[in-house]
Amino acid sequence: MRRTTTHLSDGRELRYFDFDDDPPRTASDERGLPPGSTSQGRMRFDHLTGEWIAIAGHRQERIFLPSQSDCPLCPTTSGNLSEIPERDYRVVVFENRFPSFLDENVPGDGAADAIPAFGADLPAYGRCEVVAFSPDHHGSIGALDADQMGLVMAAWRDRTESLLQQPGVRFVFVFENRGSEIGVTLHHPHGQIYAYPYVPPWARNMLDVAGLRSDGSDQSHLRSIVAFEREQATRIVHADDHWVAFVPYASRWPFEVQVHPIADRRSLAELTTEEQDSFSASYPRLIRALDSLFDAPLPYMSGWIQVPAHPTADELRDSRLFLRLVSNRRAGDKLKFLAGSESLMGAFIGDVVPEDAAERIRAALAVSR
Amino acid sequence: MRRTTTHLSDGRELRYFDFDDDPPRTASDERGLPPGSTSQGRMRFDHLTGEWIAIAGHRQERIFLPSQSDCPLCPTTSGNLSEIPERDYRVVVFENRFPSFLDENVPGDGAADAIPAFGADLPAYGRCEVVAFSPDHHGSIGALDADQMGLVMAAWRDRTESLLQQPGVRFVFVFENRGSEIGVTLHHPHGQIYAYPYVPPWARNMLDVAGLRSDGSDQSHLRSIVAFEREQATRIVHADDHWVAFVPYASRWPFEVQVHPIADRRSLAELTTEEQDSFSASYPRLIRALDSLFDAPLPYMSGWIQVPAHPTADELRDSRLFLRLVSNRRAGDKLKFLAGSESLMGAFIGDVVPEDAAERIRAALAVSR
Repeated sequence: MRRTTTHLSDGRELRYFDFDDDPPRTASDERGLPPGSTSQGRMRFDHLTGEWIAIAGHRQERIFLPSQSDCPLCPTTSGNLSEIPERDYRVVVFENRFPSFLDENVPGDGAADAIPAFGADLPAYGRCEVVAFSPDHHGSIGALDADQMGLVMAAWRDRTESLLQQPGVRFVFVFENRGSEIGVTLHHPHGQIYAYPYVPPWARNMLDVAGLRSDGSDQSHLRSIVAFEREQATRIVHADDHWVAFVPYASRWPFEVQVHPIADRRSLAELTTEEQDSFSASYPRLIRALDSLFDAPLPYMSGWIQVPAHPTADELRDSRLFLRLVSNRRAGDKLKFLAGSESLMGAFIGDVVPEDAAERIRAALAVSR
Repeated sequence: MRRTTTHLSDGRELRYFDFDDDPPRTASDERGLPPGSTSQGRMRFDHLTGEWIAIAGHRQERIFLPSQSDCPLCPTTSGNLSEIPERDYRVVVFENRFPSFLDENVPGDGAADAIPAFGADLPAYGRCEVVAFSPDHHGSIGALDADQMGLVMAAWRDRTESLLQQPGVRFVFVFENRGSEIGVTLHHPHGQIYAYPYVPPWARNMLDVAGLRSDGSDQSHLRSIVAFEREQATRIVHADDHWVAFVPYASRWPFEVQVHPIADRRSLAELTTEEQDSFSASYPRLIRALDSLFDAPLPYMSGWIQVPAHPTADELRDSRLFLRLVSNRRAGDKLKFLAGSESLMGAFIGDVVPEDAAERIRAALAVSR
């Protein structure tokens, strides 16, 4: 695997991930974007919930579902000077042009861990990156072979390692939104990385719960959850020497899968080569199975839960790496909406019995390859 | 105001709310639905987050966007034996035919407050009700005059008083989903009431935060938040002797309004007649203003935050009534989706600056009546 780092004309960083025998990546960005034109929003503290909200008005202008000929994630052509200067690539990561968080104006470490005074905001510091999974505009994770998926994992791992060290960053979230039904604004297969300046509410709550339920040993609560699922076995959809994938007992969404390493890992950076290879082979297959459940590819969100950056002792004790994938499709022609109960009260009403979802996914995996 | 209570043919309760001089409500349900055919789901505890998830597979069969001629919330006609037996009505509340929670198999008080063993589920007990705001299929809250809105409030209040006392209920959530963009499955103007057997996660967190920030006096943290908004004043969109409405400082959604009573109230049941009258006059006007922001009526979710049922001393100290309304429309042709950052991590990225949203709503209120 070979990495090549360059910068776009406005100064944003871009990194190619290639096989060793791929051609060198030397093209430069011909668009002449003005340097430093990326805007930074502000973060406001919601005293009602104890959570930070980023206000990023500049993102309203971001490009919305462009056709292939204008796609910013396709390789550059003479007619389309895209975000990626090369005429071809394997996997690319670059800083988002319309970021929710930008690594400028970083206050002192842990600034966002303290409760601010009413009305005292902060710059929305952190970093947002885009990961292009493939040069094929019509591709998907499910279409990747294990080698290409391995490059994606290498990119995820590289960025995790780097961002976990970055000053001001408290949580690195590697995720993918797929499908216009989920709100994607670009069809080209890609994921994102958000390096938040705080531990986001879902992870914060999960870690707090794990802390309360900890027996004092490392990762004990998360291990209990995985052990329960492996023991019940009824919701497991895939298992191999390194990973286990299941529909969680208390699923919120019509289709939901968690993928956990068998061994204790805290972040993508801790995975062994064997674990990486095994995931690279099985994950595209899982996505293909999910895509075969209905007539159209499944809209989904997936993301890696990992240890916070600059962790406290409790966070270090309680963190355990896993992937969470959820879909809002509840039937061929119906989506699950998060309406009043879910959106206003956080109270989820599941529409599909988890064992039924697991059975359907297992059946789809059995006929896919 | 006059209440008339009856039962549908399957045993579900239905209550009419009328003016004193309206005709008596005596019609009976001619559909002959089999008694006790309403299904109860199960609740599973998500040990990862410490939250209950209701699994209600039976709700998959619920009716989806029927036309007026099949509408279950229109008054009954010879061609449409609806959920409401009368040929006309003002406001009606009845038990949901496809409930997420049903008041059967209620375990001992506080059963859902304890952490269960792995795999130990509970019946999804509680109660779900539907509130029809108007007999007009094409109506909306914004189209109600103050008298009709007063009947809606009377219904909300009646149900709150009753459900707060019901065994097993821990939280009464009075809410409305409006617009197919938000996921409503019925266009007829209506709201819902969920009587949860637990304090839902959003309220639980809000109360925990309020407890941590309390100065020991009643409702002190919520009062501080309202005081801050009234002091800054830049986001207030409406104020009168009894209520103040503002776009919150740290809004999550493109358009978001909170409506707080000026005096300390804990639930709808505590409102004075003057407060009820004042809200009944101003709230439909607010909705009309919101509906005028774009070319089409605004999709929104709104709901009342109130004191838990059977409250603990801390919950009683920290609870303060208010209404929260949020919309997912971020531009005339664009919706805000809760994608990976929001849905998986609970980390909100706001697209509209709250002061700008407030200015637009104020301008709309100035020209609406």
